[in-house]
Amino acid sequence: MPAKDLRSAPLGVFDSGVGGLTVVRALRELLPGESIIYLGDTARVPYGSKSPDTIRRYAVEDTQFLTRLGVKAVVAACNTATAHALQLLQSTFRVPVIGVLEPGVEATLADPACQRVGIIGTEGTIRSSAYQYSLAMRRPDLRIHAAATPLLVPFIEEGWTEHPALKAVLRDYLKPLLDKGVDTLVLACTHYPLLIPVLKKMLGGKIRLVDSASTCAAHVRSLLDSHDLRRAAKSKPSLEIYLTDLSEKAEVMVRRFLGDDAGKVKMAVL
Amino acid sequence: MPAKDLRSAPLGVFDSGVGGLTVVRALRELLPGESIIYLGDTARVPYGSKSPDTIRRYAVEDTQFLTRLGVKAVVAACNTATAHALQLLQSTFRVPVIGVLEPGVEATLADPACQRVGIIGTEGTIRSSAYQYSLAMRRPDLRIHAAATPLLVPFIEEGWTEHPALKAVLRDYLKPLLDKGVDTLVLACTHYPLLIPVLKKMLGGKIRLVDSASTCAAHVRSLLDSHDLRRAAKSKPSLEIYLTDLSEKAEVMVRRFLGDDAGKVKMAVL
Repeated sequence: MPAKDLRSAPLGVFDSGVGGLTVVRALRELLPGESIIYLGDTARVPYGSKSPDTIRRYAVEDTQFLTRLGVKAVVAACNTATAHALQLLQSTFRVPVIGVLEPGVEATLADPACQRVGIIGTEGTIRSSAYQYSLAMRRPDLRIHAAATPLLVPFIEEGWTEHPALKAVLRDYLKPLLDKGVDTLVLACTHYPLLIPVLKKMLGGKIRLVDSASTCAAHVRSLLDSHDLRRAAKSKPSLEIYLTDLSEKAEVMVRRFLGDDAGKVKMAVL
Repeated sequence: MPAKDLRSAPLGVFDSGVGGLTVVRALRELLPGESIIYLGDTARVPYGSKSPDTIRRYAVEDTQFLTRLGVKAVVAACNTATAHALQLLQSTFRVPVIGVLEPGVEATLADPACQRVGIIGTEGTIRSSAYQYSLAMRRPDLRIHAAATPLLVPFIEEGWTEHPALKAVLRDYLKPLLDKGVDTLVLACTHYPLLIPVLKKMLGGKIRLVDSASTCAAHVRSLLDSHDLRRAAKSKPSLEIYLTDLSEKAEVMVRRFLGDDAGKVKMAVL
């Protein structure tokens, strides 16, 4: 049995920016008793367009920040960081590190009728082929079509999730996938759950949307249970949000994701 | 008269990413004898959405990198960095530091018939009010209307400068300015010269477009002349491009701006 203080330690979650807060929201729903420390690397966002070496360096620095604060596990709530750095993080740090990729893959394969999968994500995520590889290893018969969709994060960060221009961009990005007749669309970026309403309207319910935030939270729960790491204390769990760059816009995004529960957003120096 | 080696020293130019290469192109046209070292902080791009403190810290680090390489002057080829950090850079470093703001303001006021000015730029640039202030100080009668246009840089970085979605975004951004009847539009971001063709088509030649790249190069020439700092050597000048993150995409952008002259792009660690 782990030391009591380890069980009461917070979960650490990091992302390149505020997109990973979709995972925090899912964690709070599924694990309402857990304390959470979130780190958003807003001073260097986005990661998705940067090179693998730089992404790995940033992911290690993010994880270091969280482990120094004594977290009991780290969630890489960023698909780009997961795709390029998960193995490195798992071999470098003592605490368990969970990514968003495996949960997304499992959620995709949860429907055995799925035949043709489309994947959308940042350039970094799509280029890594991490999703394509992981899906193909488990379901060699699956038809997999991936598309880098780099403009979606800027639109989401602007809050323009219903703008006609966003719809025009989406139509262009999705056309090659729809032409291939995909039955499932994997949202391989933690920002994209915010596009589910517009995607549902555009795709009309014919295509299953897979979002990794909720399956990632389920993975974290299994991990905590298997390691007997669930927080037992009855006191109110804490939620701390750190950003490497504090701007009004980032704080507005934090409130949009988490409401006033988020408390005061703090500055992190990596 | 300055030491001969100072005259033969290169010019230093920095930007958050590759947008500042529009200034390099203008410098090479106007000052073909000068050697240039360019630093693009692609590992932390964009600056425009980040906070003033972070922008200032990055601008100081960028300038330090260039001064360590022995440049004779530094051009802050980034409107966001100029707006927030120019005074700090000028008081911190010994070499002259030239920004893109004053040249843009001068070019705007070069037409005395100008009455209503629209300014588009990143959130950081527009929020700083640096352009608005500088214009108002010199022409108190001027009507000034500014709009933050944060999605333009992502579209330009994608190379989607003719996409219908970009046009929809531009229409939305420009509408309030056009409704005010602006006769001049200041492109207060070094990325935006790449939008001149689409803007000309949309605005139909009725509105004067002010681009700071060429006026900035003219400012640099005046500075070199007034300090007797022009390179005299007849040998071929050098061009060195450093980026803090090397990605295929960034290298493609460098070639798009500068052709094969750019040589091998090097990695910079700040």
